[in-house]
Amino acid sequence: MRYLDHEKPVITLTSGPVNAYPEVLQALGRTVLYDYDPAFQLFYETVVLKAKKAMRSTTMPVILHGEPVLGLEAAAASLITPDDTVLNLASGVYGKGFGFWAQRYSPKLLEIETAYNEAIDPQAVRDMLARHPEVSVVSVCHHDTPSGTINPIDEIGAVVAEHGAYLIVDAVSSFAGMKTHPEDCRADIYVTGPNKCLGAPPGLTMMGVSARAWEKMKANPAAPRASMLSILDWENAWSRAEPFPFTPSVAEMNGLDMALDLYLAEGPEAVWARHDLTARATRAGIRAMGLGLWAAREEIASPTTTAVRTPPGIDEAVLRREVRSRYGVVFSSGRGETLGKLTRIGHMGPTAQPIYALAALAALGGALEAVGVKADTATGVAAAIAEINADEPVG
Amino acid sequence: MRYLDHEKPVITLTSGPVNAYPEVLQALGRTVLYDYDPAFQLFYETVVLKAKKAMRSTTMPVILHGEPVLGLEAAAASLITPDDTVLNLASGVYGKGFGFWAQRYSPKLLEIETAYNEAIDPQAVRDMLARHPEVSVVSVCHHDTPSGTINPIDEIGAVVAEHGAYLIVDAVSSFAGMKTHPEDCRADIYVTGPNKCLGAPPGLTMMGVSARAWEKMKANPAAPRASMLSILDWENAWSRAEPFPFTPSVAEMNGLDMALDLYLAEGPEAVWARHDLTARATRAGIRAMGLGLWAAREEIASPTTTAVRTPPGIDEAVLRREVRSRYGVVFSSGRGETLGKLTRIGHMGPTAQPIYALAALAALGGALEAVGVKADTATGVAAAIAEINADEPVG
Amino acid sequence: MRYLDHEKPVITLTSGPVNAYPEVLQALGRTVLYDYDPAFQLFYETVVLKAKKAMRSTTMPVILHGEPVLGLEAAAASLITPDDTVLNLASGVYGKGFGFWAQRYSPKLLEIETAYNEAIDPQAVRDMLARHPEVSVVSVCHHDTPSGTINPIDEIGAVVAEHGAYLIVDAVSSFAGMKTHPEDCRADIYVTGPNKCLGAPPGLTMMGVSARAWEKMKANPAAPRASMLSILDWENAWSRAEPFPFTPSVAEMNGLDMALDLYLAEGPEAVWARHDLTARATRAGIRAMGLGLWAAREEIASPTTTAVRTPPGIDEAVLRREVRSRYGVVFSSGRGETLGKLTRIGHMGPTAQPIYALAALAALGGALEAVGVKADTATGVAAAIAEINADEPVG
Amino acid sequence: MRYLDHEKPVITLTSGPVNAYPEVLQALGRTVLYDYDPAFQLFYETVVLKAKKAMRSTTMPVILHGEPVLGLEAAAASLITPDDTVLNLASGVYGKGFGFWAQRYSPKLLEIETAYNEAIDPQAVRDMLARHPEVSVVSVCHHDTPSGTINPIDEIGAVVAEHGAYLIVDAVSSFAGMKTHPEDCRADIYVTGPNKCLGAPPGLTMMGVSARAWEKMKANPAAPRASMLSILDWENAWSRAEPFPFTPSVAEMNGLDMALDLYLAEGPEAVWARHDLTARATRAGIRAMGLGLWAAREEIASPTTTAVRTPPGIDEAVLRREVRSRYGVVFSSGRGETLGKLTRIGHMGPTAQPIYALAALAALGGALEAVGVKADTATGVAAAIAEINADEPVG
Repeated sequence: MRYLDHEKPVITLTSGPVNAYPEVLQALGRTVLYDYDPAFQLFYETVVLKAKKAMRSTTMPVILHGEPVLGLEAAAASLITPDDTVLNLASGVYGKGFGFWAQRYSPKLLEIETAYNEAIDPQAVRDMLARHPEVSVVSVCHHDTPSGTINPIDEIGAVVAEHGAYLIVDAVSSFAGMKTHPEDCRADIYVTGPNKCLGAPPGLTMMGVSARAWEKMKANPAAPRASMLSILDWENAWSRAEPFPFTPSVAEMNGLDMALDLYLAEGPEAVWARHDLTARATRAGIRAMGLGLWAAREEIASPTTTAVRTPPGIDEAVLRREVRSRYGVVFSSGRGETLGKLTRIGHMGPTAQPIYALAALAALGGALEAVGVKADTATGVAAAIAEINADEPVG
Repeated sequence: MRYLDHEKPVITLTSGPVNAYPEVLQALGRTVLYDYDPAFQLFYETVVLKAKKAMRSTTMPVILHGEPVLGLEAAAASLITPDDTVLNLASGVYGKGFGFWAQRYSPKLLEIETAYNEAIDPQAVRDMLARHPEVSVVSVCHHDTPSGTINPIDEIGAVVAEHGAYLIVDAVSSFAGMKTHPEDCRADIYVTGPNKCLGAPPGLTMMGVSARAWEKMKANPAAPRASMLSILDWENAWSRAEPFPFTPSVAEMNGLDMALDLYLAEGPEAVWARHDLTARATRAGIRAMGLGLWAAREEIASPTTTAVRTPPGIDEAVLRREVRSRYGVVFSSGRGETLGKLTRIGHMGPTAQPIYALAALAALGGALEAVGVKADTATGVAAAIAEINADEPVG
Repeated sequence: MRYLDHEKPVITLTSGPVNAYPEVLQALGRTVLYDYDPAFQLFYETVVLKAKKAMRSTTMPVILHGEPVLGLEAAAASLITPDDTVLNLASGVYGKGFGFWAQRYSPKLLEIETAYNEAIDPQAVRDMLARHPEVSVVSVCHHDTPSGTINPIDEIGAVVAEHGAYLIVDAVSSFAGMKTHPEDCRADIYVTGPNKCLGAPPGLTMMGVSARAWEKMKANPAAPRASMLSILDWENAWSRAEPFPFTPSVAEMNGLDMALDLYLAEGPEAVWARHDLTARATRAGIRAMGLGLWAAREEIASPTTTAVRTPPGIDEAVLRREVRSRYGVVFSSGRGETLGKLTRIGHMGPTAQPIYALAALAALGGALEAVGVKADTATGVAAAIAEINADEPVG
Repeated sequence: MRYLDHEKPVITLTSGPVNAYPEVLQALGRTVLYDYDPAFQLFYETVVLKAKKAMRSTTMPVILHGEPVLGLEAAAASLITPDDTVLNLASGVYGKGFGFWAQRYSPKLLEIETAYNEAIDPQAVRDMLARHPEVSVVSVCHHDTPSGTINPIDEIGAVVAEHGAYLIVDAVSSFAGMKTHPEDCRADIYVTGPNKCLGAPPGLTMMGVSARAWEKMKANPAAPRASMLSILDWENAWSRAEPFPFTPSVAEMNGLDMALDLYLAEGPEAVWARHDLTARATRAGIRAMGLGLWAAREEIASPTTTAVRTPPGIDEAVLRREVRSRYGVVFSSGRGETLGKLTRIGHMGPTAQPIYALAALAALGGALEAVGVKADTATGVAAAIAEINADEPVG
């Protein structure tokens, strides 16, 4: 048998979107309330309070009604002015990409760029800031998804805070999959969303905003207002007593509400632990199969996505096609610079379960064999099992 | 008994969001596919083709991933340049509002403004264009929802086409509730969405774009690109062979797919007919109750929203609160200029059913009595029944 | 327009099945767990405990996996032996019907039968039991749905308890719509289900069983065992530590779980109050319209179903067809003896809302006019509004 | 990490209930229609016609409103009379169990019993029938689920037909997972249900009934009538023109409707092929791991359940607990005679996908290692991959 392209796959193990939790899928179908209905206004406030709890923030988060690229673009448009000097930290395609948005709002852009299988060194940031006291905004991507690598944002954040610059953090694909919160890294704007490790569909941005970021945005006459790109419009929209600037995405809010309930009920530490174990088991298997991890070092490998270096002589697209066609499993390719060089296995939300590490390894190994690469799948699966069996219960 | 503010109401009869069709609510909970999965890419193309069919377009519609205000803002940002002279037609709060967006992109704004219970006269447009041959873009709101009034966009479109200007039409709350399509009114950009008469939740824009609008936008160096506000980014995104500029709102697409299926299966003419009958019965009832319609004339009263003039001496907010508290029914208030002056009863999608006209009249009449206004509810209901009973089967 | 037979109606206002609460519909779609899975076994126990709380029982209720007719048949088969003399109390089609099942298990059947628009007089029961000390089992239907009339089961139960006989109560369409619980009426077997006032779909029986009923059933060698008709098989099945005699209806249990959550969260008293007000408003309207209630007296009219006497010269089936065809509203006909003589408007679960009383009256009045009967619909609606407006908030 | 007993597992790979297809879960939540509503009556007829198509029957199937044990008990109660001599064929716990029901209705029971890891030999049936010309009813279980073994019912059916006896077939857990239909095996009553290979929840019986079975049941005065156990009551209930004997399980019918749509749309041959491949891959893996299959021979191993012999010295319950606790995967135990001797991996409906064979093998192997058994998991997974990779596309 083969899974045809037009047929739904069996398991989506991508770096997002992944399928949502069943409870979230159901919540999407709740009754659609009128946005001015008092029951909806109270509900909206409740969801923002849950987001605040999940993000461990002392300020009210902002929900924007578009997937997190909206949040990132809005952050650049609202916070960065032509007077700012921006230091963009680029360890991958997404980090690099933010620089282009930053430059749209200020011509003064500095950059630290590493190899795309490496991470930003906080000491390099410290040195750069020492050389460039004029830097007023720093931007960094926590988990550069196309590389499956993690930057040490809490350490970077401490360096930036010492310097006094504003910090913009893209934590879209790390939040809720590992320990990271806006105030842990002292972010002024922290962008994430429900569609990765929270296990909800794409369509919303969750944003942590510091008090001084609000001040800076308000003082920026060019910050979007009365616009889909506006953050300012939504400052008080969380309150049941305030109107919305435009109609919020009611169904997405219903889904987010449930995703936050699930996250808080399971316990963030438990959620992070299963992301971590799934990723560790996957990496153990990949190494034992004789394949290469994309991440230069184990310490910077993401717990939410494992990027596997494409074996020499293999067309990565063909490999993924075999995985889907024979096993009904969907992986992600690389993006931009990393396209064709790696395959990504996601461990996010409902797929952050060790059994999916085993399924992923078996499917990847099977497909490699099907395209004529000798992979030691058996040893890989055994190594992953050893990792899982060695794991201790949480708490 | 009373319905408390924090409890869900029984029936939402607003001018949107209304509750979605049950089938749409379910579709929102379909498996979330990866946006690069071939099955999703094919699905997306299929949905756009259904939208094309529903919109009776010869060009491929664009789906933007935010509620229709995104589409309106994006239209202004993409199509209007500082070289353009814009004629904005304002017969209500929404029409008027578009002028502010237009002015953001060109300082040369002309306007025809009517009383907000009236409609734009095509002859006035003809006269204005004759006096201002420099007008290059005309914008008009089809159904100015805060007034519940309809502009004759097909006639206006013919006048504009003769003149040669580009036409931007806001048909957000009329499309799928009455006979209106992008090419009927010769719109260059026609903005609508799933969250009104199609009976799906808010979160997407559906946009008809003419060939020459594509040309004008491409020639506009300031048209948003690599942005949430971009239309251009999405030009070819409908094709299964093309990537998406960012992750589409998968769940909303699933809902839209079903909303379009329902609309096409029931038959557009039949859908319009039940919107029309529900509105006619409501208006007959309102008049028989001795209340005033907001619309100056029956011919311009919307088939998707009935705006009822607030009786003298009544606080409109108190009245709506009684409707909700005693009957569990939610109506819309006015907006801006019309706030406090009228109450709106929506007839959209699943609520465009004559039985809801009867429920609305009874609840409105009951609440009026509760606040001490003598309303002839009984006669109103009888008049609506007569209207319904007199209606002939479609087809 | 007309609603065609093959199209879904807009509002189902029957005496059951009615549409389920939206939350229940969603709960039906929860993940299906394996019946031997410890998570399911715990869940099952939890649901039974919720049922116990809702039924205000001191013993564990039994869930049978078929709609309540299964429970009634099983009660007769399990409790009644050829040694028993059964007194069946028949004030309607369903009460009468139980006698046939009783007779299947014992030839010794006595009956008190009233007119089908009347209720059983507890004094008549007392007299009969005095004349027939041999009566060992009494059976009674609380709400004889085909008549929309209520028997005073708490008073009857006291009489039966004094006599010492076992009492079987059919409370299928009254439980959760008014104050009634197994131990209020001293029932030995009390049969109800999720598919009426609890607002869930048909497919399960909920049964209250007294300690002495368990003893009697166990002592009955003919009581079904290893059978779909068995109650005994399920005695301990509620416990997470016990296996199920056969696979329970997992999805129905998921729905019941939510229905019980909703009932307990809203508060039984509040739920009963909205059933009561909806029925009162309906009756006030019916009388004011000049139509006749089927129930001989207001005091015995059901709060969960209002039976309206068919006006002379009218074909009841034609009338209901008009209601559905013109208004998209579905009512129930009579059954057996009452078929053709009355139309029933249900007020159950999600439809026990006063606004539906108004919709029902308007639709009924409109259809009467359509078939040529002069009904004073206007006055009817006004009377119902007066009833609703006069109602005080609960608590 | 560990999966706690009260938490939902990740993947249920049992011999049923398994989780339903996502589309079926959604369909369960469709609007609940009134059973006398013409739209529902038409819908019901449509579903029965789809069942007829799926069962490749020339007669109308019967839907009973309880899980398939209801169908089996009803078949015994309706078809078997004290005049009948029944030959029950028992190759496992379920086949054996049917004999007890048969004996409830006729004392004249003959039996052919094999070891519970073997299958019934058609020649043995022929011989028995030759010796016992008085045999009038033969009963056989197609897939004796507690053993994971298949009886050759088409061959047995031919022998029985030659003899002229009535044939009762339990095909509950084989239908829709392999090629089997009522008329292929010449069954007079063929019992199956939606809750195994059709991927819907438990709660209904689907039954094929031959014309002569209807005659025999009608001629049987003891056949249940006006009873939950009745088949006769439902003879014409499929027709939109006929009332139901009691309220059908509306939500379950909605689920069945979708399950049949999915089955027919995917194509029965394709569905069987993925059951078959999943089972083959599982068996290849089990053997390569050095474990024993319960089935005595590969030819009789079920394509819908693989029963794995418990390694010596292992407590089977402890093993399954480890599988669930460490991997979040649920398998089935044995039942009765086979309890403790084997573990069952189901391949049914949505879990009949080769990737789940790999997941099952890895989880089983991992758990074996965790309990101290040296299992060659790696080789097992490799063998299963080889089986999957060698499989050719269907059609």
